Amino acid sequence: MAIETQMKVHNFSAGPCILPREVFEKAAQAVLDLDGSGLSILEISHRSKPFIEVMEKARALVKELLGAPERYQVVFLGGGASMGFHLVPQNFMKTGGRGAYVNTGTWAKRAIAEAKLAGEAVVLASSEDSNFNYIPKGYTIPADVDYFHFTSNNTIVGTQYKALPKGPVPVVSDMSSDIFSRPVNVSDFALIYAGAQKNMGPAGATMYLFDPEALGKTGRKLSPMMDLANHAAKDSMYNTPPVFPVYVIMLTLEWLRGIGGIAEIEKRNAAKAGLLYDTIDRLPLFEGTAAKEDRSLMNATFVLKDKNLEPAFDELWKAAGISGIRGHRSVGGYRASLYNALPLESVRVLTDVMEDFAKRNG
Amino acid sequence: MAIETQMKVHNFSAGPCILPREVFEKAAQAVLDLDGSGLSILEISHRSKPFIEVMEKARALVKELLGAPERYQVVFLGGGASMGFHLVPQNFMKTGGRGAYVNTGTWAKRAIAEAKLAGEAVVLASSEDSNFNYIPKGYTIPADVDYFHFTSNNTIVGTQYKALPKGPVPVVSDMSSDIFSRPVNVSDFALIYAGAQKNMGPAGATMYLFDPEALGKTGRKLSPMMDLANHAAKDSMYNTPPVFPVYVIMLTLEWLRGIGGIAEIEKRNAAKAGLLYDTIDRLPLFEGTAAKEDRSLMNATFVLKDKNLEPAFDELWKAAGISGIRGHRSVGGYRASLYNALPLESVRVLTDVMEDFAKRNG
Repeated sequence: MAIETQMKVHNFSAGPCILPREVFEKAAQAVLDLDGSGLSILEISHRSKPFIEVMEKARALVKELLGAPERYQVVFLGGGASMGFHLVPQNFMKTGGRGAYVNTGTWAKRAIAEAKLAGEAVVLASSEDSNFNYIPKGYTIPADVDYFHFTSNNTIVGTQYKALPKGPVPVVSDMSSDIFSRPVNVSDFALIYAGAQKNMGPAGATMYLFDPEALGKTGRKLSPMMDLANHAAKDSMYNTPPVFPVYVIMLTLEWLRGIGGIAEIEKRNAAKAGLLYDTIDRLPLFEGTAAKEDRSLMNATFVLKDKNLEPAFDELWKAAGISGIRGHRSVGGYRASLYNALPLESVRVLTDVMEDFAKRNG
Repeated sequence: MAIETQMKVHNFSAGPCILPREVFEKAAQAVLDLDGSGLSILEISHRSKPFIEVMEKARALVKELLGAPERYQVVFLGGGASMGFHLVPQNFMKTGGRGAYVNTGTWAKRAIAEAKLAGEAVVLASSEDSNFNYIPKGYTIPADVDYFHFTSNNTIVGTQYKALPKGPVPVVSDMSSDIFSRPVNVSDFALIYAGAQKNMGPAGATMYLFDPEALGKTGRKLSPMMDLANHAAKDSMYNTPPVFPVYVIMLTLEWLRGIGGIAEIEKRNAAKAGLLYDTIDRLPLFEGTAAKEDRSLMNATFVLKDKNLEPAFDELWKAAGISGIRGHRSVGGYRASLYNALPLESVRVLTDVMEDFAKRNG
C-alpha cells in the first residue's frame, strides 16, 4: 500500500498538536502491522505480550526522562486532564477536608470547581483581576490543608511558573502543557498529571506520576476507577487502557530520549521562544499579552495593537503554511504554541512573516 | 513512504479485536495525512472543522445504524465501560435510591459494585450458582427502583440475552460486546453504553446513547465529567475527546453502513456462529460451556473434554495462523470471538482445524 504524504504545514496548534514526523510514520506502520506481527496495533489484545511491553516501556520512559524516584508510580488513564481535576480531591482530600489552589485561569478554575464538589477549596491567590496575565506570587501555602494544587503552564493566557512552588503539604500539579519541556524535581510532588496531547502524544490518555506513599490517607471509599493506587497496583491495566494513545506516547518519549532528553529539549524550547518573543518585543505593531517574567515557553500569546490589521496579517501567515495561531476563543488575539516537536524552522517562518508584515505596515 | 503489510493472522481476540482491513488502511493514511490537509489526525485540533465533522458523523452514524429516535443523544468518552459502570448510578440513581441489576458475570459484578458505592444495588437474579453459564430468567423488575441494568453479552463466559429485557423503570444496558451486531429497539432503553474495542473501533473511547429525558432526576450534584447531560450539551466536546479512537469509530461505522448495516451484519454473524457451534456440537472431543439457548453469537466458549489434549490442539491452531482463542484467564478453555469484522473464512479455518484434530484424535 502506498501512502501519500504532504507535510508543509507549520502546526502551532495548542493541543492536540504537532508530534515528531518519525512518530507519525511509526504509528501509521503499526496501524497496518505492529512489528511484523501480522496484527494492527488497533486489534491486539491489551493483555498480549507486545502491548504489555509497550505499556511498561511507556511507564518506564516517563520516570527515566523526568528522573523520578524509584518508588514513584505511573499510570495512563482516559478522560483527559479534566478527569484529573476530578481525581485530585478524590485521592488527596480527606472527607470534610480542604485543598489549596492558585487560580491562574480556565483550567485552574475547573480544578477548583471539582475540589468544591468534593469538599472545600481554598483559593490562595488569583490573577483574575488582570485577565490572568501573570502568575500570582507571595502567598503562603498553609500547613493545615490536605494538598496544594497549581497549573504549571496556562495554555490560554500564555503564562508559566518559572520557579515551581514547594509546600509543607503534598504538592499536586497539572502539567498538561509543559510536561517534558524542562527539568522537574519529581520528589517535590505528590502527583504530577498531564493530558497527553501536547508534549507526550495524541488525545485520549492522561499520565499520572505519583508518590504512592502520599495516597490512601483520605478516608474516602473510592470507585476503583477513581483510585490511583488501584490503577497502579494493576500496572495501569485495571481496565482496558487506551492502547493506541499509549503506544504513540511510547514512540514520542523514545524520540525525546533519542534527541538527548529533557536537557536537549529545554535548550531547543528556549531558542524557539527566545526568537518569537524577541520578534514580538522588537516590532512595535505587536504586543505580548502575558507579564514578561511569567511568559510561557510553550504558548506565546500576543496581539496586533491595531486590531484592524488582523485580516491582512491572517492572510499573510496562512499563505506561509502556518496553522493554529489564532488565540483561544475565550481571549482572541494570537497564540503560537511551541511544543517540543515544533521545529525552530517553523518559528522562523512565523517571525519572517511578522517582520515582513511590519515592513509593509511600518 | 512504503508500508509493509502482512495480514495472514486470523484474529479471534475478545477485544480489542479485529476491525475491517479498509479501516486499518484509512486510519494509517490519516495518521500520516488527514484527507490531504497536510496534517496528521494525531495533531489536528479537536476544535478544527475536520474533526468536528468526524465527531458529528460518528455520533450521527450511531443513531442511524441503530435507528435511534431523534431525541436520543450520543457522546464518546474515555475510560472504557468500567467508567460506564461508575456513570450509571451517578446519572440514574437518586440520592438514597437504588438500582436493580442482573448478575451475569465479571462485568455485571463490577457494575453492581459501583452501584453499591453510590447507594443500594438490588440483585434481581444471578447465574453465579452455575459459573454464569446461563442468562437468568423469570424475575420481575420492580417498579420502585430507579433503573434496571443488564449486560447484554458476557464476553468471558459466552452468554448473551436473546430477548432483551424491558421494564417499568429506565432500562440501562452495557452492550460493549454485542452493540451493532443485531437490531435493538433503542426506545426501550434509557441508556445503552459500550466500550468501543469490539464492534465499534479501537480501545480508548466508550459510546453512550441515551434518552435525555431520562436524565436529571437524581438530585445528585455531579462533576461535569460525570454528567452525561453536560457532555451532550457540549456535543461530546466538553473536554478534549479521544480524537483518534473517535475517528476510527467513524470509519468502522461507515464500513458497517457500506456493507448493508445491522440487517446484513446480523446474517453474517449468525452464519459464523452457526458454523462454529455446529462443529463444537458435532465433534465429541469438544463441548460448549454456555447453556445452548443463551449462547453468545459474539464469543463462543468451549473446552476439550480431555484437557490433556490441549497442547496438541494448541499447536494445530497456532500453525494455522489462528490467534486469540485461549479462554479468559479467569475461566480457561477456549473462546473464539466472532465480532462483526471477523470474516467467515477465519471461522472456517478454525472449524477445519477442529475437524482435522478430531480425525487425528478420534
